[in-house]
Amino acid sequence: MRIITISREFGSGGRELGKRLADLLGFDYYDKEIISAISKNKGIDEGYIENVLNNQGWKNFPITFRKSFAGLNGINNLNMDILLEQNKIIKEIASLGKDFVIVGRNADVLLSEFKPFNIFVCADMESKINRCIERAYENEGLKRKEIEKNIIKIDKNRAKTRELITDSLWGDRKSYHLILNTTDLEIKKIAESVKYFVINFWENK
Amino acid sequence: MRIITISREFGSGGRELGKRLADLLGFDYYDKEIISAISKNKGIDEGYIENVLNNQGWKNFPITFRKSFAGLNGINNLNMDILLEQNKIIKEIASLGKDFVIVGRNADVLLSEFKPFNIFVCADMESKINRCIERAYENEGLKRKEIEKNIIKIDKNRAKTRELITDSLWGDRKSYHLILNTTDLEIKKIAESVKYFVINFWENK
Repeated sequence: MRIITISREFGSGGRELGKRLADLLGFDYYDKEIISAISKNKGIDEGYIENVLNNQGWKNFPITFRKSFAGLNGINNLNMDILLEQNKIIKEIASLGKDFVIVGRNADVLLSEFKPFNIFVCADMESKINRCIERAYENEGLKRKEIEKNIIKIDKNRAKTRELITDSLWGDRKSYHLILNTTDLEIKKIAESVKYFVINFWENK
Repeated sequence: MRIITISREFGSGGRELGKRLADLLGFDYYDKEIISAISKNKGIDEGYIENVLNNQGWKNFPITFRKSFAGLNGINNLNMDILLEQNKIIKEIASLGKDFVIVGRNADVLLSEFKPFNIFVCADMESKINRCIERAYENEGLKRKEIEKNIIKIDKNRAKTRELITDSLWGDRKSYHLILNTTDLEIKKIAESVKYFVINFWENK
């Protein structure tokens, strides 16, 4: 089983890269599908889950807690419950034994036993704001400054949520096989290059 | 003119990657050639220059100094003199107008006006120590712990020398287009993938 995980700064095009890579390689693809599964399993609204995961996944966790979610099962807290359910679903996906690409959700850490190929996607702020404006109608009418604030907030949440389960830092070169800067680049073309890189990586092993 | 700069952790295979990329693309290649040029221009021993650049390039610089070497020309200090000469030679190479690959020496910062494609190469410590032992006979008989100490020292010097001329951090994702982790990988195969990536990048522009 070959797994590609994609971590990314909000607005850097990581999700599109993941989707395109999955298409090019004929792999399964997981991203928002996971939210739907949490929603179904827990009977919680998808929008609510998405907000928790984007903006406050790390909140209300014991500060002393690290590296294992195991000890948290008894604690009654909805944020925690959603994160734990997400982790469970990600492990279940891996247990299917099929090749797949997964975007976000600290899958690189959660699935480390399967030796995934881990990509991090970043871009400069200008470029991320432009991508947000192009891609999502909900940003229409928002000022660039507001979008920037939102990007910073979401990425801060991502870094902090990662800190709950690992010492390896979000976006740090030590944590990934490949870090890509998509500033001014077309994701479609990058995807082709990354495909070569990943295939070579597996052949190399 | 197309320029590829390669920054790297010591022992990560960055130099080999640079050489191979230059061969694959038919570009000129600069690395130790620069030390020979400094030696010739300044009448200083190559070994001495290499030691200064590897181990103490940043030393004796005024702490308040940043982002421009211009103000230093009057200061009498051999380390400074060597660094300034190196910077001058790098600019002269660019002024030839030919495509080239350059390894190390903060060329990404010094040549930023030419919009180079900037690569950073890293690897885990285990893998870097192994590479050092395989590649360089001068490491024969050195204990792994000693090699590790040396790697850490050289990389610390690289980071500090970079700090003299820019705010952008050595090895940080914001400073490069591509960061590669070469742990357990054959540089020869990586070079092919990176070639695709770089060509796509320039076509994309």
